[in-house]
Amino acid sequence: MISRRRVIAGAGSFAVVSASRSATMSETGVSKQGSQSMQIKRSGDQPSQKGPEAWFTGQVRIDPLHTAVAPAHANVASVTFEPGARTAWHTHPLSQTLIVTAGAGRAQTWGGPIEELRPGDVVWFSRARSTGTARAPRRR
Amino acid sequence: MISRRRVIAGAGSFAVVSASRSATMSETGVSKQGSQSMQIKRSGDQPSQKGPEAWFTGQVRIDPLHTAVAPAHANVASVTFEPGARTAWHTHPLSQTLIVTAGAGRAQTWGGPIEELRPGDVVWFSRARSTGTARAPRRR
Repeated sequence: MISRRRVIAGAGSFAVVSASRSATMSETGVSKQGSQSMQIKRSGDQPSQKGPEAWFTGQVRIDPLHTAVAPAHANVASVTFEPGARTAWHTHPLSQTLIVTAGAGRAQTWGGPIEELRPGDVVWFSRARSTGTARAPRRR
Repeated sequence: MISRRRVIAGAGSFAVVSASRSATMSETGVSKQGSQSMQIKRSGDQPSQKGPEAWFTGQVRIDPLHTAVAPAHANVASVTFEPGARTAWHTHPLSQTLIVTAGAGRAQTWGGPIEELRPGDVVWFSRARSTGTARAPRRR
């Protein structure tokens, strides 16, 4: 869903925690009553993906870290923006949290001020449901 | 809840995503139909906490990053273990994901092998419900 509610631009990396309404994997078969399973994905096990053109302008690399397992909802990825790259205006159905891990970035909600982001900053976006499209801010 | 299902030890930092059954904040009053809110916590805004003795042995620093806002469930923190520090054996009611961000660590589930952890590794623990206590592995 592309809408006009927020945009992220930058030359840096963000750890992104997104809550999805429907988890894409199920814990069925993994967890047993009274036991606990551990699954390890080693550094480099999960191939990087190019940020799809429908979602991003410019070069963006997505490194998936964790896919939600029901009943949990949170997906985790590292997203790296080359200088000038940015998202399309968009929303998330169940909120999203960004942790700036390197570089610098900017974030904006529709009609709001542009916020400069630095490593260590944490940005939380509430859920939103409207749709639309808009021009993203230009690179300075 | 302290139980015997897993333990984490290390000399490093972990980004921790924990799913909680009940979110501690509510999105009510934040999100409005058709709009999206953005909240930024700047680096240093959120004070570090000492890992409580009931949960950890040794020096552990917890830097909270994000507290779940209903209807989302995921809390995010950075947890740093001094050399030799470790968790007590414990479980999580709705799973937990660790992303190793620096240093080295070890993780173990009850009765399972000790797994060495390096930066970039992602560890997912299923939920578990049993309780108990146990001696944590000794430092090598």
